[in-house]
Amino acid sequence: MDIQSLQFAKRFDGISGSAIREIFKLLAVPGMISFAGGNPAASALPDTQVAEIARELLLSKGKTLLQYGATEGYAPLRESLVPYLKDRFSFDCREDEILPVTGSTQAMDLLCKALIDPGDKVVVENPTFLGNMQAIRLYQAQLIPVDSDEDGIKVDELEEVFRREHPKMLYVIPTFQNPTGRTLNLERRKKIAQLAAQYGVVVAEDDPYRDLRYAGQELPSIKSFDTEGWVAFMGSFSKVISPGLRVGFLAANAALLRKCTIGKQSSDVHTANLNQAIVDAYLRQGLLAPHVEAICQSYAEQMNKMLALLSKCGGVARYTRPQGGLFIFAELKEGMNAVALLNKAVERGVAYVPGTYFYAGGGHENTFRLNFSMSTIEQIDRGMQLLNDVFTENA
Amino acid sequence: MDIQSLQFAKRFDGISGSAIREIFKLLAVPGMISFAGGNPAASALPDTQVAEIARELLLSKGKTLLQYGATEGYAPLRESLVPYLKDRFSFDCREDEILPVTGSTQAMDLLCKALIDPGDKVVVENPTFLGNMQAIRLYQAQLIPVDSDEDGIKVDELEEVFRREHPKMLYVIPTFQNPTGRTLNLERRKKIAQLAAQYGVVVAEDDPYRDLRYAGQELPSIKSFDTEGWVAFMGSFSKVISPGLRVGFLAANAALLRKCTIGKQSSDVHTANLNQAIVDAYLRQGLLAPHVEAICQSYAEQMNKMLALLSKCGGVARYTRPQGGLFIFAELKEGMNAVALLNKAVERGVAYVPGTYFYAGGGHENTFRLNFSMSTIEQIDRGMQLLNDVFTENA
Repeated sequence: MDIQSLQFAKRFDGISGSAIREIFKLLAVPGMISFAGGNPAASALPDTQVAEIARELLLSKGKTLLQYGATEGYAPLRESLVPYLKDRFSFDCREDEILPVTGSTQAMDLLCKALIDPGDKVVVENPTFLGNMQAIRLYQAQLIPVDSDEDGIKVDELEEVFRREHPKMLYVIPTFQNPTGRTLNLERRKKIAQLAAQYGVVVAEDDPYRDLRYAGQELPSIKSFDTEGWVAFMGSFSKVISPGLRVGFLAANAALLRKCTIGKQSSDVHTANLNQAIVDAYLRQGLLAPHVEAICQSYAEQMNKMLALLSKCGGVARYTRPQGGLFIFAELKEGMNAVALLNKAVERGVAYVPGTYFYAGGGHENTFRLNFSMSTIEQIDRGMQLLNDVFTENA
Repeated sequence: MDIQSLQFAKRFDGISGSAIREIFKLLAVPGMISFAGGNPAASALPDTQVAEIARELLLSKGKTLLQYGATEGYAPLRESLVPYLKDRFSFDCREDEILPVTGSTQAMDLLCKALIDPGDKVVVENPTFLGNMQAIRLYQAQLIPVDSDEDGIKVDELEEVFRREHPKMLYVIPTFQNPTGRTLNLERRKKIAQLAAQYGVVVAEDDPYRDLRYAGQELPSIKSFDTEGWVAFMGSFSKVISPGLRVGFLAANAALLRKCTIGKQSSDVHTANLNQAIVDAYLRQGLLAPHVEAICQSYAEQMNKMLALLSKCGGVARYTRPQGGLFIFAELKEGMNAVALLNKAVERGVAYVPGTYFYAGGGHENTFRLNFSMSTIEQIDRGMQLLNDVFTENA
């Protein structure tokens, strides 16, 4: 029988793969200025520190690290995460409420695996991170987008949706959101924790950018207001240590976490021990805080430079003014099309991600996302000039 | 709303987690002799080599390795795998037919994600590896067990099942099978490749133990007889380099692999770059062959010692005589119960895995699986003596 006759599972109907990961492939041209990624700067990756940590760990406990580990995670890391979560995210949790995962993308996957049957409803911010929309769609959930404004997702609409639609889950990025860069305000954080318990909706709180704050006051996590256990917190070290190591964690109610752990047995048995131990050592040796401080200093300059140039950029109607994170979200004048203009921009040597991909229902073709972390001040200068040219010529 | 009211997804109905992983937790008693695991010996884990490789890689290309990587895998590793697959598994494949994964468990998960809708039928050997049965069950497939004999799965029965049941997939471990230690003979390998194409069934060929051969002739993979692309080959470095690094690979038809790659975007984005690069360096530096040779020498002694003692062990009716791998499968006399006797054995200080867990339909309570790789000759001596005592007293 011809292999072309092979039928794939229904969960792939309408799934074509991450648009961003496809755009990345266009960017392998020398000299291309990319505002498209969400990657840390090369200078933010602590390669020499990690080289020494890895060697030292392998020489001192290599036999343990190279052996099979527990699905529940590397015990020293779970232990380190308890005070880390308290200090950085303002919530208490026990070690058996923490599961190290293979990047926080896996946390999203495991929550869906534990909770979502085909047809279940999942509420997402409009717009939101497209990678996790794909993860949710692969579980054949129905996505229900709820709009956000300068203060994050609109909680009045959210309550109305909770009441009317009985969703299973809310997926939310409260701090320096992807793609908008916006931060959910304090009042709404409290309200979401309360609505989750009131309506019995699991909140998947995704907070990878929190440490990248360049202005304003830090806010407690939604999970810190969770008294009943409905908030599942997904954390990541990708933006502050290394995405290539693939280490994140899920902190959740023990019964929910147990289902995720069983799910993880069949996903990858456990997250690589060496990678968990590297992150653990990085935390224990107190390397994270000074590293984050250094990163923030340069990212802040990059963001401010980009914002300043955006204020003078032709064709741009409005844009967000984040206090941190990696992204600025902008809107071209009505009738302009950021999808169509991407090709022209790439021809000139600069790239961004069209905003339409971040909307569950598509549309919003005049929006786009800019990243500043991967570019030097000089590249931002040059890249914004090129964008200004393209947009001005096509306004 | 009380979190106790949370409803989990239907895929977890009847799933209680890996029985083996639960047994492992009983074994954390000092002095326990465990024939229960499937782990490499500590001496088989190349910790000092990996320490130097990791440091060298991080110092020379740390900025690349700590950054995000492609879902498609670390390019040098894919390149190294082409000749490795040709040399070790006797098949040709292109780089775009190879996907590095986070342990071969992920290969199984991604194949199911790509192919299985609830109710689809998957044929498995009876008995087979329980971890992957759980992975398949989480996709709500119907497992159809087909018996095996000394030469592996019975292909006449298999053809009958293919004809009658129209299964979507066959899951098979052809070499030194888990749990039986048996090897599928050459004729049946050819036949399975032919049946797969004839009936349009994807074969998930799982071959992690192949390099651990202590006697007899090496056989080509099922995939080497696959002319149409119906065989998906799952490989692992867990048994020959390190399970803790979580690096395996999937080699399959490009269209099927593309679906698996999209599925992987939402599973963990990519396998950790450092881990892929360590395996790549291990292959490129020619370290694998001498390492495997050293491992095999001591595993062979351990297996032969265990087989010799098993021939004199009370209560044992029969057992397999593998030519390699990590496991021996044995049967107690009719009416004896290896599940009930496990507690008594653990009280005496020795453990095994009851065979019933490896049967899709349960039953076979008089069977059990023994592992020899984790135990010294002295531990095998002592442990088999303890087992002899328990079985003799309860025969």
